[in-house]
Amino acid sequence: MTDAAVHAPRRRGREQRHAQRAAPLALDARPIWPGVEGGRFRPLTDAQVARIHEATLYLMEDVGFGNAIPPMVERVCARGGRMDEHGRLRFPRALVEDVLRSCRKTFTSHGQRPEHDLEIGGRRVHFGSGGASPNIVDLDTGLYRGAMLADLYDAARICDLMDNVHFFNRSLVARDIENVLEFDLNTLYAIASGTAKHVGSSITTAENVEPVLALLDAIAGGEGRYRKRPFAMLLSCHVVPPMRFAEEALWVLEKALPAGMPVMIVSAGQAGATAPAKLAGTVVQAMAETLAGLVYCNLIDPQATVICGPKPIVSDLRTGAMSGGSGEQAIVAAATVQMARYYDLPCSVMAGISDSKIPDAQSGYEKSYTITLAAHASCNMITQTCGMQASLLGLTKEGYIIDNDMLGAIARSVRGIEISDDSLSVETIREVVLGEGHYLGNAQTLEVMTRDYVYPEIADRQPPATWEEQGSKDIRERARERAREILASRFPRHVDAATDAAVRERFPIRLPRGLMHRT
Amino acid sequence: MTDAAVHAPRRRGREQRHAQRAAPLALDARPIWPGVEGGRFRPLTDAQVARIHEATLYLMEDVGFGNAIPPMVERVCARGGRMDEHGRLRFPRALVEDVLRSCRKTFTSHGQRPEHDLEIGGRRVHFGSGGASPNIVDLDTGLYRGAMLADLYDAARICDLMDNVHFFNRSLVARDIENVLEFDLNTLYAIASGTAKHVGSSITTAENVEPVLALLDAIAGGEGRYRKRPFAMLLSCHVVPPMRFAEEALWVLEKALPAGMPVMIVSAGQAGATAPAKLAGTVVQAMAETLAGLVYCNLIDPQATVICGPKPIVSDLRTGAMSGGSGEQAIVAAATVQMARYYDLPCSVMAGISDSKIPDAQSGYEKSYTITLAAHASCNMITQTCGMQASLLGLTKEGYIIDNDMLGAIARSVRGIEISDDSLSVETIREVVLGEGHYLGNAQTLEVMTRDYVYPEIADRQPPATWEEQGSKDIRERARERAREILASRFPRHVDAATDAAVRERFPIRLPRGLMHRT
Repeated sequence: MTDAAVHAPRRRGREQRHAQRAAPLALDARPIWPGVEGGRFRPLTDAQVARIHEATLYLMEDVGFGNAIPPMVERVCARGGRMDEHGRLRFPRALVEDVLRSCRKTFTSHGQRPEHDLEIGGRRVHFGSGGASPNIVDLDTGLYRGAMLADLYDAARICDLMDNVHFFNRSLVARDIENVLEFDLNTLYAIASGTAKHVGSSITTAENVEPVLALLDAIAGGEGRYRKRPFAMLLSCHVVPPMRFAEEALWVLEKALPAGMPVMIVSAGQAGATAPAKLAGTVVQAMAETLAGLVYCNLIDPQATVICGPKPIVSDLRTGAMSGGSGEQAIVAAATVQMARYYDLPCSVMAGISDSKIPDAQSGYEKSYTITLAAHASCNMITQTCGMQASLLGLTKEGYIIDNDMLGAIARSVRGIEISDDSLSVETIREVVLGEGHYLGNAQTLEVMTRDYVYPEIADRQPPATWEEQGSKDIRERARERAREILASRFPRHVDAATDAAVRERFPIRLPRGLMHRT
Repeated sequence: MTDAAVHAPRRRGREQRHAQRAAPLALDARPIWPGVEGGRFRPLTDAQVARIHEATLYLMEDVGFGNAIPPMVERVCARGGRMDEHGRLRFPRALVEDVLRSCRKTFTSHGQRPEHDLEIGGRRVHFGSGGASPNIVDLDTGLYRGAMLADLYDAARICDLMDNVHFFNRSLVARDIENVLEFDLNTLYAIASGTAKHVGSSITTAENVEPVLALLDAIAGGEGRYRKRPFAMLLSCHVVPPMRFAEEALWVLEKALPAGMPVMIVSAGQAGATAPAKLAGTVVQAMAETLAGLVYCNLIDPQATVICGPKPIVSDLRTGAMSGGSGEQAIVAAATVQMARYYDLPCSVMAGISDSKIPDAQSGYEKSYTITLAAHASCNMITQTCGMQASLLGLTKEGYIIDNDMLGAIARSVRGIEISDDSLSVETIREVVLGEGHYLGNAQTLEVMTRDYVYPEIADRQPPATWEEQGSKDIRERARERAREILASRFPRHVDAATDAAVRERFPIRLPRGLMHRT
């Protein structure tokens, strides 16, 4: 990079960007990376954290949970718990505190390829997809329609290329698959074929765990291979708020954990409907429900890899509709992150839900403040950060591309400002003010250009006249063009043709082979 | 509000919203308010703050500032400063520390009407407009064109109705006014006629101070009346970074401060061009430049009302263009806020700059993370929070309406979560889980509906089908409709016809009278 490039007239910016992107940066020279460390946003005081903690333990011990299944009752009672007169399972404080001390605090989240491995835990922040949208806004017609398996594969293929989307949880429900086993298998196969990153999905029934594990082994290249690098996690909605367990989900955990599946346990109460409308109460209930799941998983396997997902959603109290894009949502999610950090638990919250139906300005601002606060509170795995619309009832493929740029900028803000004698720049300032009077060609400027500054892929930084000359396109239009380009040309190859053929022989794979191997 | 309303089907949501908005809330029952307290985001550690502080004082004392005017040199040297061999004015550490201790820490920012008074200082956060855009995106054609005086009046009229825009700084340059005195007078008159909130504008030359003050008195209803409730602040770009003063701006301060004008002193270096590219250096230089202005104002008048505005802007280092919507911008602004809070100074930063040319998803997300972090760092007066596009080279009228909803949600997140025995809701949770099993009709839900939850004006929370039935409009389209409605019907009356006539007799007012009194 030469002085000339820095001084180049603005109209050359676009060509320069392309040239720069063509030369990938060494890992240690990147301005942002998966796992940039947050923690500078603390929505709660220490005293408030302590009160939420106390209220949480009280709920677990003195209110307890309904719908526990027999092996859970047995496990919890063996460690001092009891069934009360209302048929509710009480979790003793000592047990909860034991598990909080002994449970797994960090782990490697494996990609299908090692370059996508993530170190989860501590203050490290990662962004991923998520959700179970029944609809999609069609990339061509712009209309809402039912989501299909091929859409899910497309979503995964797009995210595979998005640097700031670090893992891929299934974000839509393939409505063209009715059979429950076929649904579980195909959902997982569509996303695992679409991206080499870590993937996450749910398993509907306990009987499906074994075939799903068999499929994961097959994708990984043979029996026992998945367990060595478990590249897929189980998304478990283990509770039906308020304070009841989801029985089938518990039976799934009983089978999946011993097989070495990492699990994200999710409590998704809706404030004002299935969780208290008062935000403090929402947080308390979510924490109690999540910690109950954590305790249970640890009783099944003390070495279990568990990501705690207290994920309450706020309602518009006038209508009862979800308002996942609200300011209330943003602060509730960040507060639950701070509680998880207090316990030093690997954690996940939802952020990036928008109530808008399409990627417009509302969508942009709602996603942005919710993700920003969750990230700065240092959530380890933020889900729903990309693509989602309509309070999780819709998604757009172009949204992943828009949101990737947003996530990069947010990651940069999380990285923060390094302070050193060098970065404080006092001597540089002195030189400049006594010399040239500006910093344009300064050595420091060239040094930080690629190391400290993030450049978006499609976000617009042109002067107004140039932007108009290029057709006055909004970011959604540019993202649609890019999505079409990706979908027409990028077919991941990490599940090779032989593996694909072997998988198709053993499992009822519904994704047309032609979609996977078009080029 | 009855149970029935809470349970009403979603399709009735819109009518309900309208009914609710028709009944304004008592002030103490509002979910958000001007001056909601931030401070939970601290991008810097205490040790980092101390290092920036030391580097700042070092720059002021050992590098000093160029282009000081004689009365400034005299004032600073009388307090231990000196001119060095490079003609740079050095600010001794003791003087800076004295002023930091003794300067005004809080003040009332007066509206033209008392209901718009703001208490500035501490951790209280306020949002306002700002900028000096030469262009506007025409509300009807959607094309960029030169900004005009009537546009400024329109912008003020719209913001007058936006609850979450607490003050109005002139956000565009009226390109239809060439004469410098006419420009200063008309800019101020257009905004002071358009909104009864506190307004801010610049004064180009020292000779213009007297006529501007006369105009402000005339608006306020007579000589000496402005000084009693100074409803307009002076925006002073007192430096030309790096580390040089803007001489004319200093001469303006020499006249405006003794007249009792509140002043926002602004240092707007551009990282990589007129400020260091390393973000820590950007912060240090901005703080040094801002504190030099603060010291100077206090030497002119120890009772001066000064808002410190360290407002560096980040560049895209590949092109040199501003990238005020970047993640780097967000973190730099928040860090300068933290420095100002360290000194307990009334402070202002810019946030809400977008590099996008129009209010699209990029615009939404860029505005949102920059404002969110500045607000949570507890900036007292955040400027540029609404309407701006194109890195301050453009604005849209509909943007004010979109951004108002965003600001409300961000304010809600700043308010945070109150923790009390009641809000922790343990007993409510117990009742619900042993009783109905949901919170829909719970007394708590009804109680918090209007006190704790913010409802947007135009942001969409409809189900997808309803949204499509209503025309699949994005928020920009809805905002345009609302802007046209406001501009056709709302003509503020706080500058009454008699005052207007008196002003027009004495001053060369160019805003057509018909625009102000159409209805």
